[in-house]
Amino acid sequence: MSTPAYDDLCQRHQRIHRLAHLQSIASWDQSANMPPKGNEARSLALAEMGGLLHQLATEPVLKDLLARAEQENLDDVQRASLREMKRVWRSSNALPQSLVEAKSLANSRCEHAWRSQRPANDWAGYLENMREVVRLAREEARLLAEDSGLAKYDALMDQYEPGMRAAEVDRVFGDLRQWLPGLIQQVQEKQKGETVMQPVGSFPTAAQRALGQDAMTLMGFDFEAGRLDESAHPFCGGVPEDVRLTTRYREDNFLPSLTGTIHETGHARYEQNLPRHWLGLPIGQARSMGLHESQSLSFEMQLGSHPGFAKLLSPLVSKHLGQQPAFAADNLNRLMTRVERGFIRVDADEVTYPAHVILRYEIERALIEGEIECEDIPALWDQKMMELLGLDTRGNYKNGCMQDVHWGCGLYGYFPCYTLGAMYAAQWFATMRRAMPDLDARIAAGDLAPVFDWLKSNVWSQGSRWETPELVQRASGETLNPAHFRAHLQARYLGA
Amino acid sequence: MSTPAYDDLCQRHQRIHRLAHLQSIASWDQSANMPPKGNEARSLALAEMGGLLHQLATEPVLKDLLARAEQENLDDVQRASLREMKRVWRSSNALPQSLVEAKSLANSRCEHAWRSQRPANDWAGYLENMREVVRLAREEARLLAEDSGLAKYDALMDQYEPGMRAAEVDRVFGDLRQWLPGLIQQVQEKQKGETVMQPVGSFPTAAQRALGQDAMTLMGFDFEAGRLDESAHPFCGGVPEDVRLTTRYREDNFLPSLTGTIHETGHARYEQNLPRHWLGLPIGQARSMGLHESQSLSFEMQLGSHPGFAKLLSPLVSKHLGQQPAFAADNLNRLMTRVERGFIRVDADEVTYPAHVILRYEIERALIEGEIECEDIPALWDQKMMELLGLDTRGNYKNGCMQDVHWGCGLYGYFPCYTLGAMYAAQWFATMRRAMPDLDARIAAGDLAPVFDWLKSNVWSQGSRWETPELVQRASGETLNPAHFRAHLQARYLGA
Repeated sequence: MSTPAYDDLCQRHQRIHRLAHLQSIASWDQSANMPPKGNEARSLALAEMGGLLHQLATEPVLKDLLARAEQENLDDVQRASLREMKRVWRSSNALPQSLVEAKSLANSRCEHAWRSQRPANDWAGYLENMREVVRLAREEARLLAEDSGLAKYDALMDQYEPGMRAAEVDRVFGDLRQWLPGLIQQVQEKQKGETVMQPVGSFPTAAQRALGQDAMTLMGFDFEAGRLDESAHPFCGGVPEDVRLTTRYREDNFLPSLTGTIHETGHARYEQNLPRHWLGLPIGQARSMGLHESQSLSFEMQLGSHPGFAKLLSPLVSKHLGQQPAFAADNLNRLMTRVERGFIRVDADEVTYPAHVILRYEIERALIEGEIECEDIPALWDQKMMELLGLDTRGNYKNGCMQDVHWGCGLYGYFPCYTLGAMYAAQWFATMRRAMPDLDARIAAGDLAPVFDWLKSNVWSQGSRWETPELVQRASGETLNPAHFRAHLQARYLGA
Repeated sequence: MSTPAYDDLCQRHQRIHRLAHLQSIASWDQSANMPPKGNEARSLALAEMGGLLHQLATEPVLKDLLARAEQENLDDVQRASLREMKRVWRSSNALPQSLVEAKSLANSRCEHAWRSQRPANDWAGYLENMREVVRLAREEARLLAEDSGLAKYDALMDQYEPGMRAAEVDRVFGDLRQWLPGLIQQVQEKQKGETVMQPVGSFPTAAQRALGQDAMTLMGFDFEAGRLDESAHPFCGGVPEDVRLTTRYREDNFLPSLTGTIHETGHARYEQNLPRHWLGLPIGQARSMGLHESQSLSFEMQLGSHPGFAKLLSPLVSKHLGQQPAFAADNLNRLMTRVERGFIRVDADEVTYPAHVILRYEIERALIEGEIECEDIPALWDQKMMELLGLDTRGNYKNGCMQDVHWGCGLYGYFPCYTLGAMYAAQWFATMRRAMPDLDARIAAGDLAPVFDWLKSNVWSQGSRWETPELVQRASGETLNPAHFRAHLQARYLGA
């Protein structure tokens, strides 16, 4: 069957994929390698490419090609592929090229300055750059909202989690807010009675790096198709064919880096196992940020903090950091499931983590809707941290509202995905346990293949074949159900 | 004075500069970082960008803009800038986009395969990829020759050393061939009587890296605007704003890496000190490959192998590799000026080096002119190595014709630049000594500023302001004069 318009669209997307490859690698390099004086030129180069990619995604001929492809005799997969091409087209055409370029430049500048401003606790300096980032994000939200008919914040969130709305987030986070503070208290009460041995450091960076690499290998990361490096803010970048993980090391504590590496490995395996036959097309990309986070949290929390998994990790830790009583599997697992109310989201345990997300969601939504200004953030941050976790962050910008780079990079509507991901992950493991009642014993025995096979079949290999609700339904037999997350936390932390 | 056409051309070149930035960084990454399974996608991405840059450099409107700018009231610098824009336009328009893309793809594939084929001594495998590279290089030469009216090999060489012709290379290399074999013999006779202590290894890679970084700092490399990494074949890449050097380490011998790093530092400082006010325009780029090599050889040979410079290097070597009698300045200098007939060009001393270049020049010229085929290379290589250096390389492809990646990357007409560069470098230092008779004492005292200041004023800051002969005349008061190179070798190696 001849499908000339659809074929033409495929070629155009593959060209965009090839050029975006260079942008991804140069962006990773900007965070992992680039010396400071290179930043101005890099920012200009990335902005130029951002503009070019936007131009390619908005070429006038695309509208006609999409309409003609719609009339062609496409099979089911091609039709899903066309649906995703239309999604890209719609979101690309909502923004003028000048805004895309201005955003790229402002975000790069703000992110780069943040790297030195955060350690200096320089909120005033950061604020100066952030105002422009927010101004452009609001402009973006306004245009996306106009185009889609959604509310402004919904329009931004829709880019990361298609179909998710603030009303739905309110419902789910509202449920969480009800039982989370009580659960945190119960868990902390229970853990008071536990004895946890603290590891004795320091832990040299080189040894931690080797430990991280072993953990990645245990979890199936393909080092022939990716790397582990360092950056101020850990992330999973690069391209599906060459995935670039980063982490950061603290010589006084190896756990943040180890769990961070395991987290990013979940993102990495999703990317490394995206369907190769659709590579370069929108249907071949990861479905959504929430589903992406469901993979990183499947690795970090469902597996990484599993008592059986600690038995696998324990010998690796001893191999690289030396023998210590604290490295025994039981103690390691207690260390990795310790619940503490802390300042830093990325270091938070899985029980307090949703509190960090709720706080950010409430602030960024108000910021985008124009109800507050950047100047109002610190006071709101202080108030909500006190409310949700009982912590005082006044004046402590670097461990407060400057800890994440998201807002400096123009990422608004992204934060809810972290907690949606935690819920999806709990739902995946509940589904696996129904099919494999001995799953926990298998994990403890080092047989991780059933987990990876399930994720590969149900999530990784699906790319963007289905919209999220349908993927969730197909994978687990039901739509998103937060009860699984609650049950998981109760089982793991209260033995209930 | 309004110069709309010239201004439009400037904007177009700056856009090309920004996009080429991403290509440079991704190419560096391909050599320094990329895991093997990333290569296919990277090659496709670089080919796509190569095609795009070619398209931007050949847009039909440029012809008209160049003609209109010619009529505008330009000052001397703008006129030189326009001359360089025309040079870029001419060379870009000689080749169709399909050839540019095919070259990029074939070169990437051949270079990547070479990385594993060379250690495996797999000439047959390399040959398979190289045939396509040569086929495309010949096609390129044919088109460039048609366009310029030059001979085929001249047309290729003109890309790297504008204005240089095979007839001139024949004249200079003919002169060299006359006295070089005799000089090598004389020097080896003289050195037979010298006692040289050999360093006792091994030398850990991390210590060598730190030593290299200290040597780079001594030579003024700006680590805020560049990095040192590792790759199979050392090179100086990246962009002027962020220069990426690479080297490779052998734990049994630290000298190849140290001298290689010093060599690349010369290239790097040229790039780091190109005139910032012309950045993004052709006039702001380094003048030619021969002049580039004159910088790396000013650093590696004129300075690096200088007996006074050894006094500066000696304490750095001891600091990183421990105290050894062999690290005394005098002995270090004897080690660094040891003349030996060896297989490997990049490890060759400055006396035998020109023999390696003459050999390559003769082979590649015949290859491009169609007088020989790829299959003929090993036999010719063997014959000429025997003739020029008395060495038998039969069957030893990895240390013979597979040692360099140039021919696999489609770089033909480039090799002569190495020896032209050595001659320019000797001419620079002869000029400096005329103005500063105490130059050698200053170098020994660690006062390198006069050397760097001279190079900065006369070469680095000039970008492509002048064509090479005029730059040489302005810098040294005469045109290229090989007598300086001969006098330098005689003075350093025979004390004459």
